[in-house]
Amino acid sequence: MINSEFIRGFPKEEFEARTQRAQNMMREYSIDAILMMSETEFTYFTGFQSNFWQSPTRPWFLILPSEGKPVAVIPSIGQNAVSTSCIDDVRIWASPNPQDEGISLLTTTLKEFATSHKRIGVLMGPETHLRMPANDVEKLGIALGSIELTDATNIIRGLRMIKSEREIEKHIFVCDLVSSAYENVPNLIRAGMSERETMHIYRMDVLSRGVDSVPYIIATGAPEGSDDAIRYPTDRALAEGDVLFIDTGAEIDGYYCDFDRNFAIGKASGATRRAYDLAYRATDAGIAAVRPGVRTCDIWKAMADVLGLSEASGGGVGRMGHGVGLRNTEWPSIMPTDETVLQAGMVLAIEPGFDFAPGKMMLHEENVVVRENGAQLITRRAAAEIPIL
Amino acid sequence: MINSEFIRGFPKEEFEARTQRAQNMMREYSIDAILMMSETEFTYFTGFQSNFWQSPTRPWFLILPSEGKPVAVIPSIGQNAVSTSCIDDVRIWASPNPQDEGISLLTTTLKEFATSHKRIGVLMGPETHLRMPANDVEKLGIALGSIELTDATNIIRGLRMIKSEREIEKHIFVCDLVSSAYENVPNLIRAGMSERETMHIYRMDVLSRGVDSVPYIIATGAPEGSDDAIRYPTDRALAEGDVLFIDTGAEIDGYYCDFDRNFAIGKASGATRRAYDLAYRATDAGIAAVRPGVRTCDIWKAMADVLGLSEASGGGVGRMGHGVGLRNTEWPSIMPTDETVLQAGMVLAIEPGFDFAPGKMMLHEENVVVRENGAQLITRRAAAEIPIL
Repeated sequence: MINSEFIRGFPKEEFEARTQRAQNMMREYSIDAILMMSETEFTYFTGFQSNFWQSPTRPWFLILPSEGKPVAVIPSIGQNAVSTSCIDDVRIWASPNPQDEGISLLTTTLKEFATSHKRIGVLMGPETHLRMPANDVEKLGIALGSIELTDATNIIRGLRMIKSEREIEKHIFVCDLVSSAYENVPNLIRAGMSERETMHIYRMDVLSRGVDSVPYIIATGAPEGSDDAIRYPTDRALAEGDVLFIDTGAEIDGYYCDFDRNFAIGKASGATRRAYDLAYRATDAGIAAVRPGVRTCDIWKAMADVLGLSEASGGGVGRMGHGVGLRNTEWPSIMPTDETVLQAGMVLAIEPGFDFAPGKMMLHEENVVVRENGAQLITRRAAAEIPIL
Repeated sequence: MINSEFIRGFPKEEFEARTQRAQNMMREYSIDAILMMSETEFTYFTGFQSNFWQSPTRPWFLILPSEGKPVAVIPSIGQNAVSTSCIDDVRIWASPNPQDEGISLLTTTLKEFATSHKRIGVLMGPETHLRMPANDVEKLGIALGSIELTDATNIIRGLRMIKSEREIEKHIFVCDLVSSAYENVPNLIRAGMSERETMHIYRMDVLSRGVDSVPYIIATGAPEGSDDAIRYPTDRALAEGDVLFIDTGAEIDGYYCDFDRNFAIGKASGATRRAYDLAYRATDAGIAAVRPGVRTCDIWKAMADVLGLSEASGGGVGRMGHGVGLRNTEWPSIMPTDETVLQAGMVLAIEPGFDFAPGKMMLHEENVVVRENGAQLITRRAAAEIPIL
């Protein structure tokens, strides 16, 4: 249950290296500091972890100056906890305080650092949002006067997309645990169980293997093929001929896996078997196409060719894979319009899917690390034929 | 494990009533529509649930016009799932599309509804944030031209703070399950287990009782009193004389409990017992003070008087309770500067706490429903003396 061989956290050199790389890029972009406020960035630069991010009441701020360590500007409730991370400079305000929810303290702190270029980077781009009230965003902008807030998404995206070996070890670990859980599904799930029961039993099995949490989990069934990739489970019982689709975003020490599996209940129709085989071969083609220098749109095309899809038939899930990291889905997207060039150290979900009949979906997914010589598969490959439960 | 007596979802009258109340308030505020984008608001007005909110890649939008049902403007991946909710009008875009992540479709749809006052409400106030990229917020503002975005936090806050009997039933159900889990802690946890093991074992027990998820969970121990309310568990083993602090935000069908418990490992010192007793009596005082018409600051004072705290000694956790609903923490805050008037139907966490010595915290918490004649306790009251494990 508790994995004694798993090494938690990182040595301080890991955080120093991340900070250094960010600061090098900040110089290129003429930015004095980056202001961040999401759990992922806080964790990435400090190692601080807490379930307290679940509470939407109080914003938390992290400032990465162009030199030196990050500075935390946080509610008083977090002072002790954050002081156990690698940060030295922790500034607090008494929160909640809707009249001034940290904005004065944040402004003072930002002004202290924004002395050269008068430019502060903030994550404003795709797949980000500001975790603070919109009214306070406006207040902050006014309080900062001539200091400009500018988009720093490319800097953070560039850093977080490329994982260190220590990060990759954590991805490998969680992928291994969830691979084992998937292989155990035939021992746990059978016809007659509801989707809801299925999700519950499967979740308990994943947790019992030692992951820290399973925030993302899907378990849906429908005749011949699951009808949806994201809906909540219902009380409908799994029946013979159904395909059960399970998708799992689990994490250990903050690092995610995100991959799925399909199972047939009792029997699989010819159409189901053919769709499974096609998705399986498309996954193979996607994995085989992965290597540094190749673009995400090329990986998409390698899979689309097997599935016989054209670029126009985007629809549905909308892409065939994505980055995985401190969230279950991260940049980049594997799709025709994304031209991100793969680099060694990226962790990707290779996820080809298609509707093989109206309301019947087949979606496969594996996780890989981009290595100098190609893809390293870090999930244990799905069975070549759909497993029958 | 699966609670057959629990009724999931709501009849459509529940959603109609919510929409009707929101639309009445929109008329008062001269707002044509409210634009929402968080899981809580989506669930509140449509009943739609999905773990897909865990993926930060794609924004989702819900528009509540001044008449008629809500309209969803969402990525294509959600079309089938959302169509099973009470919404009829589901408009989709092919996502991800960082160049136009729904903004054109959203603009067209908002313009369709913003014809009378040319004012669209958005949640901009305390305890909210916009779940979309900041660059797209700006793009949307420009695209809307003369249509004004105005703060609708008070409308949504006013609605969500007052629960219907059907919502209260769900709160009661989850509080009952977690009360049972807390009462089982003495059978599961003992000296020598690490904080991490403790959290894991306790989480598994809570889940096995049939809650849907436990996103918020804290399990920390330290000599005589826990040293922190929010930090992540460590590998440190619980030792005789420690106080183990557990806090739980679990949900069933989206509705949360949020309450804590303290346990002594092996033995409790005199200081620990006295602090526990004081917090226990403060909780009693807080619960006794709850009734419609009383202000949140009055509840705070009833507890602070028992603890001998002055208004100046805010610090630490920063308040002594809060609302509970579709998140573990919601409006209002129970603190000296909050003057929210309690109304029947509110669900509150009554949460007095204090540091009884440097680095030694005592924090108690129970959940209540505000009823016409006072508080209805919906958690099973903590033991009057600290339980010894």
